[in-house]
Amino acid sequence: MIIVMTPQATSVQVDAVIARIRAAGLSEHVSRGVERTLIGAVGDERPLSAEQFASLPGVERAIRVMKPYRLVSRDTHPDRQPVRVRGKTIGSGVPVLLPGVPLIGSEADLERLAGTLAGLGSHYLRAGLFRSVANPWHDQGLGMPGVERLGELARAHGLTSVTTIADTRQLEECLQADIDMLELAPGVLYNPVLLRETGHVNKPVLLRGCETTPLTDWLMAAEQIASGGNHSIVFCLGGAERFDVSAIARLQRETHLPVVCEPDFPGIRQDQVMAQSLAALAAGADGLVVHLQGYGTDEADNALDEPHLSRLSRLLPDLYALTRPPAA
Amino acid sequence: MIIVMTPQATSVQVDAVIARIRAAGLSEHVSRGVERTLIGAVGDERPLSAEQFASLPGVERAIRVMKPYRLVSRDTHPDRQPVRVRGKTIGSGVPVLLPGVPLIGSEADLERLAGTLAGLGSHYLRAGLFRSVANPWHDQGLGMPGVERLGELARAHGLTSVTTIADTRQLEECLQADIDMLELAPGVLYNPVLLRETGHVNKPVLLRGCETTPLTDWLMAAEQIASGGNHSIVFCLGGAERFDVSAIARLQRETHLPVVCEPDFPGIRQDQVMAQSLAALAAGADGLVVHLQGYGTDEADNALDEPHLSRLSRLLPDLYALTRPPAA
Amino acid sequence: MIIVMTPQATSVQVDAVIARIRAAGLSEHVSRGVERTLIGAVGDERPLSAEQFASLPGVERAIRVMKPYRLVSRDTHPDRQPVRVRGKTIGSGVPVLLPGVPLIGSEADLERLAGTLAGLGSHYLRAGLFRSVANPWHDQGLGMPGVERLGELARAHGLTSVTTIADTRQLEECLQADIDMLELAPGVLYNPVLLRETGHVNKPVLLRGCETTPLTDWLMAAEQIASGGNHSIVFCLGGAERFDVSAIARLQRETHLPVVCEPDFPGIRQDQVMAQSLAALAAGADGLVVHLQGYGTDEADNALDEPHLSRLSRLLPDLYALTRPPAA
Amino acid sequence: MIIVMTPQATSVQVDAVIARIRAAGLSEHVSRGVERTLIGAVGDERPLSAEQFASLPGVERAIRVMKPYRLVSRDTHPDRQPVRVRGKTIGSGVPVLLPGVPLIGSEADLERLAGTLAGLGSHYLRAGLFRSVANPWHDQGLGMPGVERLGELARAHGLTSVTTIADTRQLEECLQADIDMLELAPGVLYNPVLLRETGHVNKPVLLRGCETTPLTDWLMAAEQIASGGNHSIVFCLGGAERFDVSAIARLQRETHLPVVCEPDFPGIRQDQVMAQSLAALAAGADGLVVHLQGYGTDEADNALDEPHLSRLSRLLPDLYALTRPPAA
Repeated sequence: MIIVMTPQATSVQVDAVIARIRAAGLSEHVSRGVERTLIGAVGDERPLSAEQFASLPGVERAIRVMKPYRLVSRDTHPDRQPVRVRGKTIGSGVPVLLPGVPLIGSEADLERLAGTLAGLGSHYLRAGLFRSVANPWHDQGLGMPGVERLGELARAHGLTSVTTIADTRQLEECLQADIDMLELAPGVLYNPVLLRETGHVNKPVLLRGCETTPLTDWLMAAEQIASGGNHSIVFCLGGAERFDVSAIARLQRETHLPVVCEPDFPGIRQDQVMAQSLAALAAGADGLVVHLQGYGTDEADNALDEPHLSRLSRLLPDLYALTRPPAA
Repeated sequence: MIIVMTPQATSVQVDAVIARIRAAGLSEHVSRGVERTLIGAVGDERPLSAEQFASLPGVERAIRVMKPYRLVSRDTHPDRQPVRVRGKTIGSGVPVLLPGVPLIGSEADLERLAGTLAGLGSHYLRAGLFRSVANPWHDQGLGMPGVERLGELARAHGLTSVTTIADTRQLEECLQADIDMLELAPGVLYNPVLLRETGHVNKPVLLRGCETTPLTDWLMAAEQIASGGNHSIVFCLGGAERFDVSAIARLQRETHLPVVCEPDFPGIRQDQVMAQSLAALAAGADGLVVHLQGYGTDEADNALDEPHLSRLSRLLPDLYALTRPPAA
Repeated sequence: MIIVMTPQATSVQVDAVIARIRAAGLSEHVSRGVERTLIGAVGDERPLSAEQFASLPGVERAIRVMKPYRLVSRDTHPDRQPVRVRGKTIGSGVPVLLPGVPLIGSEADLERLAGTLAGLGSHYLRAGLFRSVANPWHDQGLGMPGVERLGELARAHGLTSVTTIADTRQLEECLQADIDMLELAPGVLYNPVLLRETGHVNKPVLLRGCETTPLTDWLMAAEQIASGGNHSIVFCLGGAERFDVSAIARLQRETHLPVVCEPDFPGIRQDQVMAQSLAALAAGADGLVVHLQGYGTDEADNALDEPHLSRLSRLLPDLYALTRPPAA
Repeated sequence: MIIVMTPQATSVQVDAVIARIRAAGLSEHVSRGVERTLIGAVGDERPLSAEQFASLPGVERAIRVMKPYRLVSRDTHPDRQPVRVRGKTIGSGVPVLLPGVPLIGSEADLERLAGTLAGLGSHYLRAGLFRSVANPWHDQGLGMPGVERLGELARAHGLTSVTTIADTRQLEECLQADIDMLELAPGVLYNPVLLRETGHVNKPVLLRGCETTPLTDWLMAAEQIASGGNHSIVFCLGGAERFDVSAIARLQRETHLPVVCEPDFPGIRQDQVMAQSLAALAAGADGLVVHLQGYGTDEADNALDEPHLSRLSRLLPDLYALTRPPAA
């Protein structure tokens, strides 16, 4: 941490900063320049926050030097690392497709979906069972009873089950039903209790963020999970009207963990889903979370139909081969 | 709902839109103009979503006419309505102050805080017990054991207890400890399961949103709570670096429910908290969620000190008198 | 235009809306529903603005049905149309590369750049001569004297000259120097006087927008140019830290004009430029505005080096072939 | 400038950074920590940009210590300083009102406006003469001929004339007509040529920014003006749907120059204008740019009527007295 004092800062104010650095068990390095005094905090910065210095009198700014996350940081793991999900991996080369439906309304639809995805050669069976945007007047999804059924259907078809949770009770239900991968709804980023429990679980996690998620909040949520021992974390970016692909590179620079994209949002047209899927892959995404038309509640009809999903699947290796940098 | 067709839309595409309108139990009104065909869906729009039409072939746009929310809408309640919280109200005239601390780290701090707030004449004792932004290397807050203690201390001092929850288990604990008011963390907006359970509870709710929350998502979260029978909902805006006061007027135009503000974020300086508090009140906020210095974990030190809190408290009635429009 | 009245709207307020519609030379169609009265304005909507109705008493919302732009709209030109730039086209198939330098500091650099781009087989010579983000302490660029030199060098090497302007005087200088294509700096979107003059000029225009530009403002700026008779307009998206590729599809849905991207911003790393270039192409961009390293002022050093530029150039046709939808 | 190297940075990469620091005439201070090497650039940072280091191999981040602006910085002028505008000041205590009309369509309207504002006791006559958001199908404003008339009317009524410019030709016309204060349209922030010319002029400047303007770009635009010798700069914030009052405090922390607000945008309702005006004042704004109903083109009808404008004027001193911090 570097604390930049204002030009008017008094020596009493400098001392207050130093006292706080020492109270946290670090030592200080003071550099008095012509215009400003800079104070460096030397040692493990993680227990410090820039904010606790920023509001002290005489402080202009406090700047982190070390990242607040370590377990999920490329500092600790310079090479990108794949995540294993039931025998397969995400992040070890050719991108993967995680097809599914955001909200399943009936058991019959869930069964049809499992059959179709198995028929299409998918490895995944992604099915949302709980509504993620509140609307008491719309279908609420299959809910808890769907969780067990999802697990059974996935096992019956040899598929990898994925579903979205937003609460500790749903987590428990998923563990009981032996769901293979847990998707954490965007709001969970701000629920450290659920993040912590997910960290104690031996299941890979798909960690959703939305377009406006600050990268540091996202990485710290992953750090919270990892701090419990669960390092199988995949970031999932998208699901919003705006699709800022710069976040792929920015995440991949910070973390060794895989980054997949969901180039979709309610009301988008199929060609835009295709265009943004290809853009995500070209920009280096490790996979795509896509929706299949005709299985979910009405709102999902903007998703891909089967021919488009198949085309996307065939394009994955070619696009990978074309766009990855040549070996040095 | 008005569905605007593209100039090139075929009659088959028009028929598909009509079929979907009828399938939802509504009827259609078709108006063929020179440039475009417009199709109105006549009847209760709530089971429809604009998105399910927007992605149909030949559709340019689908525009809601009725609001997707009704219970929390001023259409249903033209006059603004206060919310009762343990014998007092929010939203019935002079704004209220809800002082507290975002994250309490120890029982001793909680006790001190209760004593101080009682001494300052506060009606509220707001204390965060769970971290809301993940950081495994920082203090996680008192957690579950703090909930019961908060209830006891509030009763002992005659204060109204408020704490933040993000999960159904925390909700249960708060009910058991008879906490007076439930603050829902920002991520809860995207957790309809917890929203629904909160709707079945007989406790007033403080519904947090952040600067980037779309207003409709926020109002639909309130609608979800209200649909369970709990109409005691207070919107709480703020807690972010940017403080867009236009949301106060925009919310108050849509809903009869009170709107309070939190003009604070980690690292803000005390004068900016004061300036933004006054701005929120001048813009019509029904109350302020403010933080008191010296009781929470380190990061909260940017909050107001006692003299500033007292000054703010004294200014509330004068600012109200000055800024409210004169009676017609 | 559809004007949605509030449930409480009086008949006097309805009449005021009708009067305003008639004053603009349109006629009205009133539809009184159970919950709300809707008023349709029938006729050419362009002289109306939604805002002039939105603020009338008793009005809840005013919704445009027709687009405020017509000349640049796909309503008028259903098929996408290329733009001719000195014998070549943008938007007629395989995307094009517009390489250059954002800010040239000396005539020597400009000469070297022209030689290099000619050697690389480029058709374009893009060179910024005026600083676009204010900084009085940094290099201001070659300025006016560079304009004539740019024209000469382009002619000497058989290249197509492109430079950025932000003011009518710079426009005049460019016409005098016979510059081939005019790039309008982002701020020009809010300078209708310069837009209008550009509309009277017989030169293709590159119309820059930034990430936060509302699409309608951008399209209206193009409409302003087109209304003067100049229909050779190419949209250029990017140049910012965030790179929202959804704007490509959204623009292409509204307009028949080409859309190119600049996947670059100060301080970006070369691999991210490459990744975002490929993403833009995969998402359907008609071309790329890219920067070449080593010719501009210091700040441009984050641009592509020659090997990367060559690789990008070789990838254009393959990526186009791979990602464009198969013929029906 | 502090350059933070990545953990993997080689000594060759460190040397390249040092070389660039020395090339700019500064010296370096290298500090090798356990996890990272930090390199400080010692000397005048202004000719450096963080971006030119950020993209060098082995560099993780480059952090400015000194501000890139100096003339407009509170570092240089610790106390806030008022700006004189034709005998009056902005920023020297009780906030001022700058009433006017965003776009005047006829000379008759301009004359009526001058009479009314004089009658209301205003010191200012603000009148937009050029459209600022392109729309070729709407009224374009009085244009150049209005400039001279504005000057005459202001002199006739003893008012201070203010108008908006976006181009060097408009600047010339304003100088010729002896307009008292120049408002720079938002796009001008990205037009250093016009900023530079405004710096050579002996007229106070109102420098508009919009909600999405990065604060540094805004301050650097002011720095560009100031570098020419013109230090009479007033920042003007607002004019957009979102009204983020935090920018007032953030600007006032960086600069000694006054900050006024425009709590208005097309389509806003009069009560929201009032509420946001009061919010801006309570948050510390030095003045308000407000619009008067009934004089401009149709779109301006959402502005304040005369009774509201008078009420606002009466509230200024009381709100100032109430909300300013008590003397220590």
